[in-house]
Amino acid sequence: METQLERVALFEILDRMKRIEADTILLVVDEKVWSYYKDRFDIDKISQFKKVNLWVAPRGEEAKRISEYEKCMESFLEKGVHRNAHLVAIGGGGLSDFAGFIASTIVRGIKWSVVPTTLLAMVDASIGGKVGLNSRYGKNLIGNFHIPENIWLCSDFLKTVSEEEIQSGLGEVIKYSFLSKPIFEMVKNRQPLEDIIQTCAQYKLDITRQDLRDGNIRKALNLGHTLGHALEKAFSLKHGISVFWGMVLVFHLFNNEKCLENLRVIKDSLNWKNDVPPWSVGSVPVKKIISYIEKDKKIKSNNKIDLIQVSDIGVPLIKEYNLIELIDKIEEVLNAPSRLTL
Amino acid sequence: METQLERVALFEILDRMKRIEADTILLVVDEKVWSYYKDRFDIDKISQFKKVNLWVAPRGEEAKRISEYEKCMESFLEKGVHRNAHLVAIGGGGLSDFAGFIASTIVRGIKWSVVPTTLLAMVDASIGGKVGLNSRYGKNLIGNFHIPENIWLCSDFLKTVSEEEIQSGLGEVIKYSFLSKPIFEMVKNRQPLEDIIQTCAQYKLDITRQDLRDGNIRKALNLGHTLGHALEKAFSLKHGISVFWGMVLVFHLFNNEKCLENLRVIKDSLNWKNDVPPWSVGSVPVKKIISYIEKDKKIKSNNKIDLIQVSDIGVPLIKEYNLIELIDKIEEVLNAPSRLTL
Repeated sequence: METQLERVALFEILDRMKRIEADTILLVVDEKVWSYYKDRFDIDKISQFKKVNLWVAPRGEEAKRISEYEKCMESFLEKGVHRNAHLVAIGGGGLSDFAGFIASTIVRGIKWSVVPTTLLAMVDASIGGKVGLNSRYGKNLIGNFHIPENIWLCSDFLKTVSEEEIQSGLGEVIKYSFLSKPIFEMVKNRQPLEDIIQTCAQYKLDITRQDLRDGNIRKALNLGHTLGHALEKAFSLKHGISVFWGMVLVFHLFNNEKCLENLRVIKDSLNWKNDVPPWSVGSVPVKKIISYIEKDKKIKSNNKIDLIQVSDIGVPLIKEYNLIELIDKIEEVLNAPSRLTL
Repeated sequence: METQLERVALFEILDRMKRIEADTILLVVDEKVWSYYKDRFDIDKISQFKKVNLWVAPRGEEAKRISEYEKCMESFLEKGVHRNAHLVAIGGGGLSDFAGFIASTIVRGIKWSVVPTTLLAMVDASIGGKVGLNSRYGKNLIGNFHIPENIWLCSDFLKTVSEEEIQSGLGEVIKYSFLSKPIFEMVKNRQPLEDIIQTCAQYKLDITRQDLRDGNIRKALNLGHTLGHALEKAFSLKHGISVFWGMVLVFHLFNNEKCLENLRVIKDSLNWKNDVPPWSVGSVPVKKIISYIEKDKKIKSNNKIDLIQVSDIGVPLIKEYNLIELIDKIEEVLNAPSRLTL
């Protein structure tokens, strides 16, 4: 089955839900999104056509706990779930990870569709079938691959998204600009954000269609993430913002001046506002980065790890490193805070 | 990836684990099995070759709770799990369901192998990739499909299995005898149990290779289960014993005298000891059966349900019924307790 990607207006979402071929909808929504938009989703109207079971989940990553998973599962199962039920997730990346994991495991898996409501979810998190929960020991360590049937992109939701959330989404857009020349051109030429969103989403969809399980080219999407995840944890950053600084560090690590120059061009076109590195007071948390990398779930059995670099716009390189050599390099380069800026 | 099915002696299992291509083994064992056999699995010996993380799970279905799932996941994740780790499950059907669900969702899925230790697990539960947990509202309502890499059949474990457990496994062997003419002949000719086990396991493996997700022929394996599950719950029966009585009821329901006659032949060849119906004191719990069927996760969106019948040995029929008509038939036929015996 392939994911259908479609741009819709807010008022069309109800109609899309009505058209789903299932007699039961499990509707999983983020509590904040629901507080803003519940009047726009007249459940009584859908209930004329289908049985609708609603679950309002805590905001974002708060939902991604096993205890929340249990509560939501049992609530749906109490009402009876057949394999022909269809789950619809409305929310940001945290919500769709959570709801997708529910969809992937309830009665051993039912179909699902997503309405991403944050920029990050529209361009990245809701696409590609990675779903899951957080462990006490790391994000997304519990999960599954479960491709949604539909992704309905509705930029109307961005009106109620905070500037910080928008910036986080832009971090991933900047990443895509390095991976895809057409996206780079769109961004550089300041095309409308809605068009950029759709192109990024389509790009990720194409990549994940070719390589669902991170076997080869999907790895390129990891640009900025290996170091970024460590920064995200060390400084409690928003995901996309940490990816941005993860890219800055990886370009410095390999002395990639060309990419740093392009990064400056891209960020200005997108009105990027986070120009001060999170380590500006103090230094790059090299020890934390290393201890995080040592626990990376993507390390291979031979103690090697893939790190994504970029040789030119649209030309990502998946390079395998010996873990110890990589750590040595990080210690050597990143312990020099003065040079590590934009 | 295809499952490898192999008969091994107890002393060979350690060697098979050593040969797994992974630097880390997550070993999940049933506490009772472990109390009997831990001396035979010298973990120190494996630890010379690989990192071994052990989790001893509560007996059988007790493990299949979300709370146990969380404890086991967090224990493994605390020690660090990479995608190249390999999980080995040693135990009965409950344990392998639980352990397989762990394998399917830890770091979004790692490879796994099973050593089934009960007859039921050897011929049925450990084969075919259905893994999962129980909900408060029913068994296996939370789960996944995750094919094991190896199934190591070791009949030595049957020496410490209770007679009741053996009988439960025989219930599934009896079911296979209706689905496969070669198995029927083996059973009728009283071939060694070990050979019958391997043939049943291979039969199920072949069926599930063709149809992992219950789309068509795998449904035949459900013979006796739709009514059996209801009996299992109503009388707290062992699974295979409820499947046996589920078959008795379904043969009566469609007045299938030929199958009832074959059932008598097969059960005698296998030294089946449960000749008294669970409803012998009282009557068939028709109301409970109906309310159970109404919640069956296999009901389709058009309110139809497939029920498996057998026209002749080796010739299962997947017949679709309108739920209301089926319920009418059950009420009509099964409310006559006197005739409903072997």
